[in-house]
Amino acid sequence: MAIKYELIKECKQSGARLGRLHTPHGIIETPIFMPVGTQATVKAMTPEELKEINAQIILSNTYHLYLRPGHKLVEKAGGLHKFMNWDRPILTDSGGFQVFSLGDLRKISEEGVEFRSHLDGSKHFISPEKAIEIENALGADIIMAFDECAPYPADKNYVKNSLERTTRWAKRCKQAHKNPDTQALFGIIQGGMYKDLREQSIKEIVELDFPGYAVGGLSVGEPKPLMYEVLEYTTPLMPKDKPRYLMGVGTPDCLIEGVIRGIDMFDCVLPTRIARNGTAMTSVGKVVIKNAKYIEDFEPLDPNCDCYTCKNYSRAYLRHLYKAQEILSARLVTYHNLYFLLELMKNIRNAIKEDRLLDFRKEFFEKYGYEI
Amino acid sequence: MAIKYELIKECKQSGARLGRLHTPHGIIETPIFMPVGTQATVKAMTPEELKEINAQIILSNTYHLYLRPGHKLVEKAGGLHKFMNWDRPILTDSGGFQVFSLGDLRKISEEGVEFRSHLDGSKHFISPEKAIEIENALGADIIMAFDECAPYPADKNYVKNSLERTTRWAKRCKQAHKNPDTQALFGIIQGGMYKDLREQSIKEIVELDFPGYAVGGLSVGEPKPLMYEVLEYTTPLMPKDKPRYLMGVGTPDCLIEGVIRGIDMFDCVLPTRIARNGTAMTSVGKVVIKNAKYIEDFEPLDPNCDCYTCKNYSRAYLRHLYKAQEILSARLVTYHNLYFLLELMKNIRNAIKEDRLLDFRKEFFEKYGYEI
Ligand SMILES: [Zn+2]
Ligand SMILES: [Zn+2]
Repeated sequence: MAIKYELIKECKQSGARLGRLHTPHGIIETPIFMPVGTQATVKAMTPEELKEINAQIILSNTYHLYLRPGHKLVEKAGGLHKFMNWDRPILTDSGGFQVFSLGDLRKISEEGVEFRSHLDGSKHFISPEKAIEIENALGADIIMAFDECAPYPADKNYVKNSLERTTRWAKRCKQAHKNPDTQALFGIIQGGMYKDLREQSIKEIVELDFPGYAVGGLSVGEPKPLMYEVLEYTTPLMPKDKPRYLMGVGTPDCLIEGVIRGIDMFDCVLPTRIARNGTAMTSVGKVVIKNAKYIEDFEPLDPNCDCYTCKNYSRAYLRHLYKAQEILSARLVTYHNLYFLLELMKNIRNAIKEDRLLDFRKEFFEKYGYEI
Repeated sequence: MAIKYELIKECKQSGARLGRLHTPHGIIETPIFMPVGTQATVKAMTPEELKEINAQIILSNTYHLYLRPGHKLVEKAGGLHKFMNWDRPILTDSGGFQVFSLGDLRKISEEGVEFRSHLDGSKHFISPEKAIEIENALGADIIMAFDECAPYPADKNYVKNSLERTTRWAKRCKQAHKNPDTQALFGIIQGGMYKDLREQSIKEIVELDFPGYAVGGLSVGEPKPLMYEVLEYTTPLMPKDKPRYLMGVGTPDCLIEGVIRGIDMFDCVLPTRIARNGTAMTSVGKVVIKNAKYIEDFEPLDPNCDCYTCKNYSRAYLRHLYKAQEILSARLVTYHNLYFLLELMKNIRNAIKEDRLLDFRKEFFEKYGYEI
């Protein structure tokens, strides 16, 4: 087995899980947020900086790496860890989500998905077997099954067909997987916003016995209360002794609410993407650095943050860098945003240890507001 | 006096100068290359990284900072050092070169230059007094006089008028300068490619007694042998006890040739600009990282370099980052290029110490070639 999940304790106040995930590249303390390094780099950051802010694991995108530079090249380089100079754990998604959202002119069949590259229009075909072949070549510690993520909204029949195909594809992924001792293949639960379909998906996927499970098909445009509701009836049915990963979630409120509902792992491009647009997540809410009110603001980006950016630079300087389109702008705000989320996860873990995660949530939101 | 130049020794083989420049923000070992931080940031680098690669002094551009964020804002922030979080020496140019090369619709008069901003078309007027007012507000250790840099080629009459105006403007700059105890104002020698005009300019500018002198009007498109020829009759007439700064020069060959001809300080945007275009200066010549031949090249960018980039990443990875337009591409290649030039300057200083700079030049070019 490539990984092992240790449930350390559950928060008496909230039921949230504190755990430890043992992987071939080290131990991850959960719950955790995974910064996204789509193209074999977390945008604007070096691996050393990611370590400085205590990133324990990063996510990289199979779809993007398959198209460029190609998984065979990464394999020749010695795998993704070596290629990108990151020796801590990596998780790769299956490419399914991007094939459906970025690929042009896709044709879905039982066999797999035909699509055109968003880069050059070239034609490609990804099946469950192909996705696993790519993920095996990349060599991440955790790899994801190739699934079909239904959009929101979608009618029940569509979602049912899609979750059942996801189950059949999950079986094929498991069979195709060549490195179960060094790479843990996670199954993905679908079922949209329908309770009975979620139950069906959990039953079918868990029966296949994966070392970890993701909740897919959420954070696809539905209202947050609906996502929370789905989690409330989904996670209690998931195995307690396996890690649970909520895909595509990364706002402070959703992280806290997700952990309270039993989630251990999260990822999202949001903190790095909005950073490049000059928006920071701070302890007192969102700061849009280009706003004129920061022209002569010589205070740090987040007065309560100890990160490199906040210790050394003023909002006025960050605003200048943003307006002048300087690379340092993306660097400094990305650094802060990731630091902020990883600190949040650390504080969440501490609150679980102290059985006070609901109190922590209240304290956090009183300062932060609910705006991002 | 804001600065003091100490001539430590002259290379017995070449006549090149080894020196030490004492400034309010520390001692600079010369000859030195100054990385350019046009908009209060050396593009893609943090101040800490600049220190890691032993940058002793950086240059920032008055024209750009005047237009954005404005010198008054920088002054309110506590000066340029504090604004950008750099506590080592800074040199600011006068803005003259940019007014002439970037400003639109400029009108030159004896009083100064009227121009339109390249950013928003707004109308501005910079006189010698105004340039010094801006540079005083920015607070750099070394500030440059406002001069008129003749283009190449230019007829003798044009160059003569321009150098004489530069002298009159230099006088006005000196008079306008409010902080001679904390900021050293350098005079600029003009005279184009005409020996007698260079002699005239040196005589007039040196008479004004500045704490340092720049050779302006070179590296403006003339052939390199012509630049070397001008230096050969210019630097011997310059005071020995003052630092000599050759503006706008930053290729390895010109740095070596410039030092041999008695120059102490250099600056150029080239190493950082070409880095962002994926071109590296290496010990074995230019590497254009996007070239297909590097697709599966798992060797470092420069096999003889000890920098962070070369110790941790392959050409194949750097090529991928460049093709994928990742910010890390600009970061890693910029880091290497600046490291490479600063190492070159260190090796030049060592060669001067050992009275073997001509031998060093030969050894360097045998590996490097003459291509950049
Ligand atoms: Zn911060
Ligand atoms: Zn290097």
